[in-house]
Amino acid sequence: MDLSNLHLLSATEAARLIRDGAISSEQLVEACLAQIRAVDDRIHAWAFLDPAYALSQARALDQYRLEGKPTGPLHGVPIAIKDIFDTADMPTEYGSPIHAGRTPSRDATPVALLRGAGAVIMGKAVTTEFAFLSPGKTHNPHNPEHTPGGSSSGSAAAVAAHMVPLAIGSQTAGSTIRPAAYCGVIGFKPTHGLISRHRVSPLSRTLDHVGLFARTLDDIALLAEQLVAYDENDPDTRPGARIPYSTLSAEEPPLPPMFAFIKTPMWERTDEDTRDGFAEIAQQLGGQVEEVELFPSANDAWQWHQTIMGAEVAHNFEREWQNNRALLSEQLRGQIERGREVLAVDYQRALRQIAPMHDSFAELFEQRYDAILTPAAPSAAPKGLSSTGDPSFCTLWTLCGMPSITLPLLQSSDGLPMGVQLVGPRGGDGRLLRTARWLSKKMAEV
Amino acid sequence: MDLSNLHLLSATEAARLIRDGAISSEQLVEACLAQIRAVDDRIHAWAFLDPAYALSQARALDQYRLEGKPTGPLHGVPIAIKDIFDTADMPTEYGSPIHAGRTPSRDATPVALLRGAGAVIMGKAVTTEFAFLSPGKTHNPHNPEHTPGGSSSGSAAAVAAHMVPLAIGSQTAGSTIRPAAYCGVIGFKPTHGLISRHRVSPLSRTLDHVGLFARTLDDIALLAEQLVAYDENDPDTRPGARIPYSTLSAEEPPLPPMFAFIKTPMWERTDEDTRDGFAEIAQQLGGQVEEVELFPSANDAWQWHQTIMGAEVAHNFEREWQNNRALLSEQLRGQIERGREVLAVDYQRALRQIAPMHDSFAELFEQRYDAILTPAAPSAAPKGLSSTGDPSFCTLWTLCGMPSITLPLLQSSDGLPMGVQLVGPRGGDGRLLRTARWLSKKMAEV
Repeated sequence: MDLSNLHLLSATEAARLIRDGAISSEQLVEACLAQIRAVDDRIHAWAFLDPAYALSQARALDQYRLEGKPTGPLHGVPIAIKDIFDTADMPTEYGSPIHAGRTPSRDATPVALLRGAGAVIMGKAVTTEFAFLSPGKTHNPHNPEHTPGGSSSGSAAAVAAHMVPLAIGSQTAGSTIRPAAYCGVIGFKPTHGLISRHRVSPLSRTLDHVGLFARTLDDIALLAEQLVAYDENDPDTRPGARIPYSTLSAEEPPLPPMFAFIKTPMWERTDEDTRDGFAEIAQQLGGQVEEVELFPSANDAWQWHQTIMGAEVAHNFEREWQNNRALLSEQLRGQIERGREVLAVDYQRALRQIAPMHDSFAELFEQRYDAILTPAAPSAAPKGLSSTGDPSFCTLWTLCGMPSITLPLLQSSDGLPMGVQLVGPRGGDGRLLRTARWLSKKMAEV
Repeated sequence: MDLSNLHLLSATEAARLIRDGAISSEQLVEACLAQIRAVDDRIHAWAFLDPAYALSQARALDQYRLEGKPTGPLHGVPIAIKDIFDTADMPTEYGSPIHAGRTPSRDATPVALLRGAGAVIMGKAVTTEFAFLSPGKTHNPHNPEHTPGGSSSGSAAAVAAHMVPLAIGSQTAGSTIRPAAYCGVIGFKPTHGLISRHRVSPLSRTLDHVGLFARTLDDIALLAEQLVAYDENDPDTRPGARIPYSTLSAEEPPLPPMFAFIKTPMWERTDEDTRDGFAEIAQQLGGQVEEVELFPSANDAWQWHQTIMGAEVAHNFEREWQNNRALLSEQLRGQIERGREVLAVDYQRALRQIAPMHDSFAELFEQRYDAILTPAAPSAAPKGLSSTGDPSFCTLWTLCGMPSITLPLLQSSDGLPMGVQLVGPRGGDGRLLRTARWLSKKMAEV
């Protein structure tokens, strides 16, 4: 075992090696920290990182295992936490000067679940300001002149640069799928309400999702299994049996999957690389992909999303608006200002569109298709760090609360990664992972 | 058995006699129809009644029983349905000329549950226009010059006048408790989300509750048992085990119950009869009642209720507002107009008050009290039919989704019934019924 390369391991492999005693969590975390020392000065993925504290968690977990105590599925595996999730032992600053130095006393529910699974909470990953648009300090690991995407910038970059095998982030428009695609990792946004957002800084109850980052589908499934759980403190989660995503996602599809290629009105924003990439995929899938026209009412989804997000952001930032307006970015101030003008009838009308829109998609899946196939973003990561790129290919699925995943299956002409997004119906997360695995294999055969 | 007096039976007694073969459903329904013929021309409780069809349901249920098939808990017992609940076999007109002659093809969930329990759907009871404020044709059975209250006017009056032993209605502000109190019957509004409102004309998702009317607490518990059920079509219901309200409510309290007498800011509206009545009750309860001051934030509840109701009514009546504005009453038009101006931030701020307010009440119950004791209305039924009276003693509990029940334990100086309202914490419906029974017995001892 080459100890200096442990940071290249997947979480699944690392957890197995730790369980078997082949490596220690301390060795794994040390390798990740070495990688961070080697590369992070040009990436800046971390809002908070205390190497000594990360190592002390690892040593405690090693000791625990040596005492013969039961270990969790992520025992000793480090994970990055987007800095909008409260951590009882680290600052949580939301990427905003308003909350500089804030040290919450409790963990967000996903963080608590990760600790329960034995994970090492490596540190806090950079977020844009309050997970909205204003960028943090992170650069794209593939080219530091390009944005890593946002808002989960640090989460995506840390996984892409092998600083950690796993990270969690969030998505309210395109904040998981977009940075994952730009950074060339897998990003997974499960069905709305599957993962609790308790003690996670809210933008919009209707739209906020927890997002997952990893470099392999096994890792995504393993991580999802730890996080999907009912939490009475998140009114959108529902009691239900734990779902074995690892098992489900590893199964062979009973029939070759069918894909519905949906361009959406955002297709006009795609660059040539994206169009070429999708033409190539379509060719390889042959009869297994069909282009499907979006039903007309869905074309208004971007407007409904904006109304809901505007109203709910304005609501969630009332305190900052009243007390710290000058410390908000211009972008967020503008959003709040517009949101404060939204009428309750318009807000409710927008909310009411979601269920029928999702029902129309559900029909598509029942009739014929295993997944919707669509770009993760209109292009690879744009040059420049003043914007986090375009979330428009994620908006519709986020609004409908549908599970979506991006796979790093394409490359731009200048060598940057590009994501292929697959989308399933609400609750179809396991099957979506299975279909994603099938597609990854298929594309690897080429 | 005096067949001409069967309409005086409680639902519980009637169901037992039918089950035992001592009377038939046809005999019971015939007695109720005879009572309707005798008294309804001065009460006008019915929006729709087809005596022949009611009798044909009864005969079919009798036949069913004679064939030895299993019977439901309400087998053969007639019930009145407020005319905002869809019925597949009767018109449902919402008390509005806009929907005159409307004949839905499906039952509202509560109606379907009642049919499943073997009830005879007697007919549709008068509602105010869309269960809002504009009165229907119903008079108070105790004095036809007085309002029966609203909006469940016909439901309360029909039960009070022994036309049926049971009725269902609804409550968004005070539409169950107030008419029950004015008409001298028991009105019960269970915890928000316990009873489905699927295919019930909505005013406000946050505030709408199904309400129950009967003349005995046994009947209320029996009826609640049939109606409390998860329905995936009402997003506010939750899966859960069926709760045996009859058993729970029949139990002796382990300790003599303690009552928190809460006057609320509405106390200044009470008349002398009400104040005298409550002074009397307080005296009889002695050390078992304590006056409790409302916590200050609850004093804004009436304002929050108005904001939420305004916004949600405006949302639910968009179609009528666009297409049939002239056919709406002035009161409803005014409400919609005001509601259309409500900002989404104000609406969300109001919604957010509910949970903490309920938590404060929950503490009260945990610490010391079995129920809150408060008037059902500021007075007995006011004279005149142009208004349905004052719901202000119900607003706070409706907003918080707390179960409340009114018991006809008082009388005004001119002989009209007055209600004593008991309120419990969300989910404490069974215990509230038990406490209500204790109080009824206690007051009967005098």
